[in-house]
Amino acid sequence: MTEQEGLTVKKSQNFDEWYTQVIIKSELVDYSAVSGCLVFRPLGYSIWELIQKATDEKFKKIGVQNVYFPLLIPEKFLKKEAEHVEGFSPEVAWVTETGDSKLEERLAIRPTSETIMYDSYSKWVRSWRDLPIKYNQWNNVLRWEFKHPVPLLRTREFLWNEGHSAFATKEEAEDERDEILGIYQKITEEFLALPGIIGKKSDKEKFAGATESYSIEHLLPDGRAIQGPDFHHDGQNFAKPFNITFLDKNGKTQYVWQNTWAITTREIGVMISVHSDDKGLVLPPKVAPIQTVIIPIFDDKTKSTILKAAKKIADMLDKKVRVYLDNRDYYTPGWKFNEWELKGVPLRIEIGPRDLKNRQVVLVRRDNSKKRAIPISKLEREIEKELEDIQKTLFKRASEFLETSTHKIKTSDEFKKILQTKKGILQAGWCTDVKCEGKIKEETGAKITNIPLNQNKVFSGCVYCGKKAKVIANFAKSY
Amino acid sequence: MTEQEGLTVKKSQNFDEWYTQVIIKSELVDYSAVSGCLVFRPLGYSIWELIQKATDEKFKKIGVQNVYFPLLIPEKFLKKEAEHVEGFSPEVAWVTETGDSKLEERLAIRPTSETIMYDSYSKWVRSWRDLPIKYNQWNNVLRWEFKHPVPLLRTREFLWNEGHSAFATKEEAEDERDEILGIYQKITEEFLALPGIIGKKSDKEKFAGATESYSIEHLLPDGRAIQGPDFHHDGQNFAKPFNITFLDKNGKTQYVWQNTWAITTREIGVMISVHSDDKGLVLPPKVAPIQTVIIPIFDDKTKSTILKAAKKIADMLDKKVRVYLDNRDYYTPGWKFNEWELKGVPLRIEIGPRDLKNRQVVLVRRDNSKKRAIPISKLEREIEKELEDIQKTLFKRASEFLETSTHKIKTSDEFKKILQTKKGILQAGWCTDVKCEGKIKEETGAKITNIPLNQNKVFSGCVYCGKKAKVIANFAKSY
Repeated sequence: MTEQEGLTVKKSQNFDEWYTQVIIKSELVDYSAVSGCLVFRPLGYSIWELIQKATDEKFKKIGVQNVYFPLLIPEKFLKKEAEHVEGFSPEVAWVTETGDSKLEERLAIRPTSETIMYDSYSKWVRSWRDLPIKYNQWNNVLRWEFKHPVPLLRTREFLWNEGHSAFATKEEAEDERDEILGIYQKITEEFLALPGIIGKKSDKEKFAGATESYSIEHLLPDGRAIQGPDFHHDGQNFAKPFNITFLDKNGKTQYVWQNTWAITTREIGVMISVHSDDKGLVLPPKVAPIQTVIIPIFDDKTKSTILKAAKKIADMLDKKVRVYLDNRDYYTPGWKFNEWELKGVPLRIEIGPRDLKNRQVVLVRRDNSKKRAIPISKLEREIEKELEDIQKTLFKRASEFLETSTHKIKTSDEFKKILQTKKGILQAGWCTDVKCEGKIKEETGAKITNIPLNQNKVFSGCVYCGKKAKVIANFAKSY
Repeated sequence: MTEQEGLTVKKSQNFDEWYTQVIIKSELVDYSAVSGCLVFRPLGYSIWELIQKATDEKFKKIGVQNVYFPLLIPEKFLKKEAEHVEGFSPEVAWVTETGDSKLEERLAIRPTSETIMYDSYSKWVRSWRDLPIKYNQWNNVLRWEFKHPVPLLRTREFLWNEGHSAFATKEEAEDERDEILGIYQKITEEFLALPGIIGKKSDKEKFAGATESYSIEHLLPDGRAIQGPDFHHDGQNFAKPFNITFLDKNGKTQYVWQNTWAITTREIGVMISVHSDDKGLVLPPKVAPIQTVIIPIFDDKTKSTILKAAKKIADMLDKKVRVYLDNRDYYTPGWKFNEWELKGVPLRIEIGPRDLKNRQVVLVRRDNSKKRAIPISKLEREIEKELEDIQKTLFKRASEFLETSTHKIKTSDEFKKILQTKKGILQAGWCTDVKCEGKIKEETGAKITNIPLNQNKVFSGCVYCGKKAKVIANFAKSY
């Protein structure tokens, strides 16, 4: 790897520039010719495939079924729910022409699929026997934001899951919340090694069309918060304009109760930015497409012996871990070390003539650079242990950062001071008046990320007006 | 199931109407509010997931890597390859506005992704060390055809894989053909139980931008041919306008050689139309989301015993096959029989009090309605055997139909007569002059589906002009 190919800035010195370099130079993603739309290179896309697979398995276990709905949505559908159209129409990409013809009605590229899906639900649902519906799509959506795009974190096209359920009763719909957020929590914590704060969105920040929104909020290394997976109760907000009704067991016509929920490719960006370092990506083992890379060290004389031994080790490990033998002979071992460090492979095995003679290999951890010799006979078990330990270590480190970056705030002055010096998450009492929320945003730039479900005891008055606080809310400068 | 929910026409009497009924009433797919764009309901989408998974595993084994490229393509890119733009621009859906703003340059929704991918390839490829590139996308594409759309068989939006490779030499690129077509052949024959004819497209029918196109052609029950998966050599047709060059081992700048290849959701439509019958879908076991459905037969007194026994059987079979226990108590067994027959589940297990007493169940095959009692102790093995047999039987039946519908033709009169009375595939000598090909199409409506790789001995002159035939080509009325 030449110097040009490695990172030239430090994460601690210039986070934004470091982030761009680390995702581009590691060949995770690339810019495309269309501003704000990203190319997922094999490394980036295989991480998404692993996230998808793990999430999808959990969805299927609770009875979610996958479907696919059209990309294009008639303009009249988007207009059926007032808040929904207001929220999304400024960001919609419109198809107006096909071939040489003008369309009579504009078609929106889906920014989200409520409207086109619920048009079908209204045809499909007749009786209580047809409920619940728990459908999900893994697809691409487009939101033509005019803010400065940041790869993965804010892109105009992104990949996601969009779950859209319908229930006979409000209670059933409400019960789905913890089930889905529980799945997202498992995926973010156990797979991406990303801690997050689960909470309810304020009315001001909730999803366009929802009655209530919930989110998992992450913290970036630069102290800004960023929203992760979310879950929304729609109530009957869509059921009414789309006329999704059913005959209940008593023969009475009722509207359904609905939810929607999503996890997006943004998570990859958050994960990268939290764990990675000045040498490149650091990938948690569970989402690392290659978990262990084997680098044989040889000269012309030892080449065939070493490659044979390396191949044997690769075959042995292949049943347990995702292993890759880098047997290219036109790059030096040192070049390869740098390349695979840049690409974030959790473990590296080095094997040279002396190692082979001693029936051992050298094992190097990506997260802490620790090196140790291991007898080949113990390798399989040691690799598994190290991968588990790396996964835990990354989560622990990120959790500690989140904890030390979360500040209990009692006064407005303190609020402003902490925000300027330390950033992070500011926990503060809030009277739940939207005016205070608005003023805080106006004066400090911080918004309510969410109101944690896991509520601390209210320890002060409203951080803005000083009146009685009804909840502890989390405030932060946010993406 | 009420009569309204079952099929009301016979496949042999009105194929088109039968086809529409079978795919809609089985809840495989549904129409959407956007003409020509389809909704994949859970049944249809899970079939696609099974096809994807089987194909993707085979791709990965030969080193293909998945990627994701933007949905939108700048107009100037589409124009870079002359034949490509000519072929696709009449069918392109154009984004011209976003939010309230007009775009400066129109953006095409991808009808296929050569142009946006190759723009990136030209950045990524520098040296022979960067080759080969074997990238694939599983995504959605849009082709705004103005012909009458037919669900799955001809839709404006469809799902597919698009593989796009780049090699250092022409020979390597050529070698990929049999590898990829071999994968598609395995998927169509062994999974979808669909026979096909592998051959080369005539120049007139080849892909816009390719130097050579190859396809697997299927035959529909009404005697029309339809194109299945395809493979195209691009030569250097895109490498030159997109400037995809590399330094070879001698330090010389060279253009890459490229291929593209695809399988689409159309295969589901072909598969359904070939195997299904007047009772509904008939799914080959390998792509059946539910391979065996268990229908417990009980009254109030026997309910709990029967359900318990049925659950035990379901758990036992669950390791080996995709099994579903239909324990709904608000539908009669007869209603359920009809429903699962309509949905094409290959095997049905009936278990009632008398069966349980005899430690047996009744097993019913969807493809031939054969019923037999089987001791529970032998069930696991028998189920596996029956599923294998159904898979083979469907393929055999379809292969026989293809064989008896393929006609060797020597004269122009014979050609026209067969086409009017029997349809099917017409094998005939062809001088390879595009004028004869054009005249045949003009006069009979039949086009060359492909020129089989597995060439029969030339047995006559050109079926149109009578001059020496260079190849045996397959002609058919075609979708």
